[in-house]
Amino acid sequence: MSRLLDTIDSPRDLKRLSAADLPRLAQEIRSALIETVSMVGGHLAPNLGVVELTIALHRAFDAPRDRIVFDVGHQAYVHKLLTGRREQFGTLRRRGGISGFPRRCESPYDVFGTGHGSTSISAALGIATARDLAGEHYQVVAVIGDGAMTGGMAFEGLNQVAERDTDLVIILNDNGMSISPNVGAMARYLQRFRLDPGYSSAKRSVEGLVRRYDRFGLGNHVLDAVEKLKDGAKSLFLPGMLFEELGLRYFGPVDGHDLDELTRTFEQVRRLKGPRIVHVVTQKGRGYRLAEEDAESYHGCKPFDVDQGQLDPPVPQKTYSEVFSEALAGLAEADSRIVAVTAAMCVGTGLKPFARRFPHRFFDVGMAEEHAVTFAAGLAAEGWRPVVAIYSTFLQRAYDQVLHDVCLQGLPVVFCLDRAGLVGSDGPTHHGVFDFSYLRHIPGLVVGAPRSGAELKRMLAAAFAHDGPFAIRYPAGAAEETESNGRPSTLEIGRGEVLREGSQATLVAVGSCVGAAQAAADELAGDGMQVGVIDARFVKPLDTGLLEDAGRLTGLLVTVEENVLQGGFGAAVLEWAAPLGIRVHRLGIADEFVPHGSQTELRQLVGIDADSIAQAVRHAVAGRVSAGP
Amino acid sequence: MSRLLDTIDSPRDLKRLSAADLPRLAQEIRSALIETVSMVGGHLAPNLGVVELTIALHRAFDAPRDRIVFDVGHQAYVHKLLTGRREQFGTLRRRGGISGFPRRCESPYDVFGTGHGSTSISAALGIATARDLAGEHYQVVAVIGDGAMTGGMAFEGLNQVAERDTDLVIILNDNGMSISPNVGAMARYLQRFRLDPGYSSAKRSVEGLVRRYDRFGLGNHVLDAVEKLKDGAKSLFLPGMLFEELGLRYFGPVDGHDLDELTRTFEQVRRLKGPRIVHVVTQKGRGYRLAEEDAESYHGCKPFDVDQGQLDPPVPQKTYSEVFSEALAGLAEADSRIVAVTAAMCVGTGLKPFARRFPHRFFDVGMAEEHAVTFAAGLAAEGWRPVVAIYSTFLQRAYDQVLHDVCLQGLPVVFCLDRAGLVGSDGPTHHGVFDFSYLRHIPGLVVGAPRSGAELKRMLAAAFAHDGPFAIRYPAGAAEETESNGRPSTLEIGRGEVLREGSQATLVAVGSCVGAAQAAADELAGDGMQVGVIDARFVKPLDTGLLEDAGRLTGLLVTVEENVLQGGFGAAVLEWAAPLGIRVHRLGIADEFVPHGSQTELRQLVGIDADSIAQAVRHAVAGRVSAGP
Repeated sequence: MSRLLDTIDSPRDLKRLSAADLPRLAQEIRSALIETVSMVGGHLAPNLGVVELTIALHRAFDAPRDRIVFDVGHQAYVHKLLTGRREQFGTLRRRGGISGFPRRCESPYDVFGTGHGSTSISAALGIATARDLAGEHYQVVAVIGDGAMTGGMAFEGLNQVAERDTDLVIILNDNGMSISPNVGAMARYLQRFRLDPGYSSAKRSVEGLVRRYDRFGLGNHVLDAVEKLKDGAKSLFLPGMLFEELGLRYFGPVDGHDLDELTRTFEQVRRLKGPRIVHVVTQKGRGYRLAEEDAESYHGCKPFDVDQGQLDPPVPQKTYSEVFSEALAGLAEADSRIVAVTAAMCVGTGLKPFARRFPHRFFDVGMAEEHAVTFAAGLAAEGWRPVVAIYSTFLQRAYDQVLHDVCLQGLPVVFCLDRAGLVGSDGPTHHGVFDFSYLRHIPGLVVGAPRSGAELKRMLAAAFAHDGPFAIRYPAGAAEETESNGRPSTLEIGRGEVLREGSQATLVAVGSCVGAAQAAADELAGDGMQVGVIDARFVKPLDTGLLEDAGRLTGLLVTVEENVLQGGFGAAVLEWAAPLGIRVHRLGIADEFVPHGSQTELRQLVGIDADSIAQAVRHAVAGRVSAGP
Repeated sequence: MSRLLDTIDSPRDLKRLSAADLPRLAQEIRSALIETVSMVGGHLAPNLGVVELTIALHRAFDAPRDRIVFDVGHQAYVHKLLTGRREQFGTLRRRGGISGFPRRCESPYDVFGTGHGSTSISAALGIATARDLAGEHYQVVAVIGDGAMTGGMAFEGLNQVAERDTDLVIILNDNGMSISPNVGAMARYLQRFRLDPGYSSAKRSVEGLVRRYDRFGLGNHVLDAVEKLKDGAKSLFLPGMLFEELGLRYFGPVDGHDLDELTRTFEQVRRLKGPRIVHVVTQKGRGYRLAEEDAESYHGCKPFDVDQGQLDPPVPQKTYSEVFSEALAGLAEADSRIVAVTAAMCVGTGLKPFARRFPHRFFDVGMAEEHAVTFAAGLAAEGWRPVVAIYSTFLQRAYDQVLHDVCLQGLPVVFCLDRAGLVGSDGPTHHGVFDFSYLRHIPGLVVGAPRSGAELKRMLAAAFAHDGPFAIRYPAGAAEETESNGRPSTLEIGRGEVLREGSQATLVAVGSCVGAAQAAADELAGDGMQVGVIDARFVKPLDTGLLEDAGRLTGLLVTVEENVLQGGFGAAVLEWAAPLGIRVHRLGIADEFVPHGSQTELRQLVGIDADSIAQAVRHAVAGRVSAGP
């Protein structure tokens, strides 16, 4: 039987289907999601949860005339399937294929690109305001999860939405989770009336009660109170009071898997004016048993077997996150002042074992990076030793807090930036390729990047032994091999390591690039070139002694980093080397956003794989020989 | 008569005073505030508003054992007067004197340094959590204005406060303003019950009503509803329901100038457990008529005459903010797509005239920089041309939004960073000395800095003519003179200008440093040295043609910038020049936080005044001559 899905080239086609056909379409979409994500990896559970929501949205609204902004955007696969990208869906997240996030350049249906959380209300309000200024009349819809709703930016947006009193619909996709189960007062608040039938019946009873006493008459002094009571009662037992207090009209909770209810509600809401919020309760992972049972593991996944689910890799290799996890547990065992903070990245950063072992010393503050950092600063101010584990790309959100609340006060907070460098298929919204540049210029902050799991352990120990702020960044994926045990358990801040001697040039690499630099040196040795390799370990402070020796010896330092070249590690080396007349050639990411693709493809693309490094060294050495210094 | 204030060396002394003495003390504190701020400048109106609040706080709580965190911190002068810094108060904001903000290094009573808004709840929760971990029992208090409460970070903090259910007191200092009158749904919400006596009487009536029907009995189906009603009624008519919904216990509103009521409330609240919020209504500028009448002008002031108030300077010289204001109005007249966004900096950034002239095209989103930027991105996505005017130091809050929401999508948003460079007496929390470094590495962003008012006008015109993101930064204070009218009305992106020819070296300055570089060249010419001067105008893209010509001609480029050296303008020149073998010497701010003091003092301190520049050129030229390239 041919798929209904194959008849849908745009939301217009979707509207032609009868309501009776929709469950079948939903089933087909779920199959398509599972099939593709199991092959290419991606965000499975979030998309399985919004199948009906997205169908109903595109039935009730009129995209692309009506603007739909998906917060975070990893839940926009269904939207992509329904808006003309069905046939390319198999290319999802692959180099040259469609993105795993909405992108303006990809489709007119993607009206605003997203990736980081909590931006949709602000963007949608900007769009709605643009519409009002132009005197146009389309609808603007922000689809935001309850997880992203805890981000401060969403609140800033809400604060202005109600003030402006413009036509804007917020769909609150409440699945009780961000990446991890959701935390905080907002989550508790939503949970209190999530599908609680008590609320609706209580509301009806009280309305009846109020009407009755109204009729009886109760004397002026009480009547006045009843009048207020009536006003109040409307919202009192209405879930969503908090939103109503802020000036939004609240609808819900709606069963997010009931297509009729969803469509009816959206159609009704579409006809109204002003700021409206629709609370839709969905189940993350819906329709795929394994994802329903463990939505956190199926939030974002690698390719997997549909029947058997995610399996442990045959030869398990530890990721940097896992190494961090183990190392932290060991250190925290020995030092009871160590506490850990994350922002809805408990599993991703490897903090789960710590959280289990030291529940009172672990704090997941939800999607709230700014608060996470300053909360940690408060802990540090009172003598505790917090580690803040956040992905590199998300710590961008807390740049000001790192600078103003931690470093300006010299507080000993350890920042662990996971997923630094090129993250692969998630693409430009998620590459952590700016951290050297946004951290290095902050006075007093140590910035390091280990080349291996063993080095990460040593660096973490050094960080906790240091009386000041300290940032460590490491990539997504498997940690390089661990070495023999003969080394000391910590390393000295600002000390690099000579990994290979060489006379013609010195590769000065840091973090994830050290391995490629060593491979490049091997390759060059095969050509008869003697190129040294230094692991700089620290972007700040630099090991200037080591670098000066190497620079004097070989006359050429070639820096390699998985970061933008502007203001990054190589720039640090150059800023130091220039007055000494030591020549520096810098390899790293040029001044462009890097697309999505595999890490391997992207490292080749930007020229920091072993072959590219070797080639660059050949040219740099030749350039020096031919042109002179 | 001797001052009561002179007997107060710590809060302990304050507690020894009788309640009857307190109004006199408050009066003395107001006099001290007015006297000192009229001489040294500073934040007058905010401090006049919190005299009673701060007295009551230090009477009821037990600092420094109890921790008090002042959000933003510019309202901590009274706190400083009462905690042992009375005698140094005359040195306020002066070089070497006490800071205008709480600083941990200044006093044990300053438990957490502040400067940027909305951080206090996060910091206080960190401190409270530290206390709980240590098994101690002191109180932690965050004092936050209603303005700062609109910052998303405050909401992120609240979200976790209620979740953790720990002992924490939030004092909401509600004066209806941030720097500007407050905006947004939260402000409206607070206003609804600010001192509205109706709320309290309604609350009492309903409580009576509920008790009565309780006694009568009403049948099971209704009783159940009444039970819920009773629960609800407690908070329904209580102002602060929104906070109660989020899990905080709310008290207030309290008259913030009634010492008895304040002290009684604080003492009562101090004895309770859990998260509590006290809503205190204060009047900004209280007790000084001129500040009461125009709290915005007396928010932060220059020295002024106590009797006559702030006067226009005898020879009015336009500030950069004023030039921006005029230029923008002219451009907006000609291009109706131009809209303006700010984050509670309407007057400071010079947007007030624009707001008056184009009220529908002006948006003050409150203290919410993150939202401001993404809201502007939404407007730009629909074809409008937003300018976002925010102080350099506060745009740090929106680093991620500039990168992820604007630049990654190539949206044409114009960022105008006022108060860039060394701001003077406000000190390290407010110096805008990182923007070149945090903006330059973002792909696709043009970064410029005009040297004069006339250049700012041209650069702004160029920015609106450009189809992509564009940042312009300029300093606090008077704009350099405007030049003759013979110039074109716009300038070319990425084009610098040769201001002076020279053969021995070329000063390459940008923005606020161009004038000093020219003066240095004059000074050097007096010594017989021929030094050229280039106004680079753009940090990105660089005018590499111009720089290469100058570099080839003189062999030495000396860059000058009012920004940290790490990753800044000079680093950009160096990154470009190094492969060409052109020598670059960089002047700018070393890798340290810069203290407070006058702009002139600080520019000398960091070595970017004319004399320091001239001296550095002499050394650099001599170094080349003696040591060779």
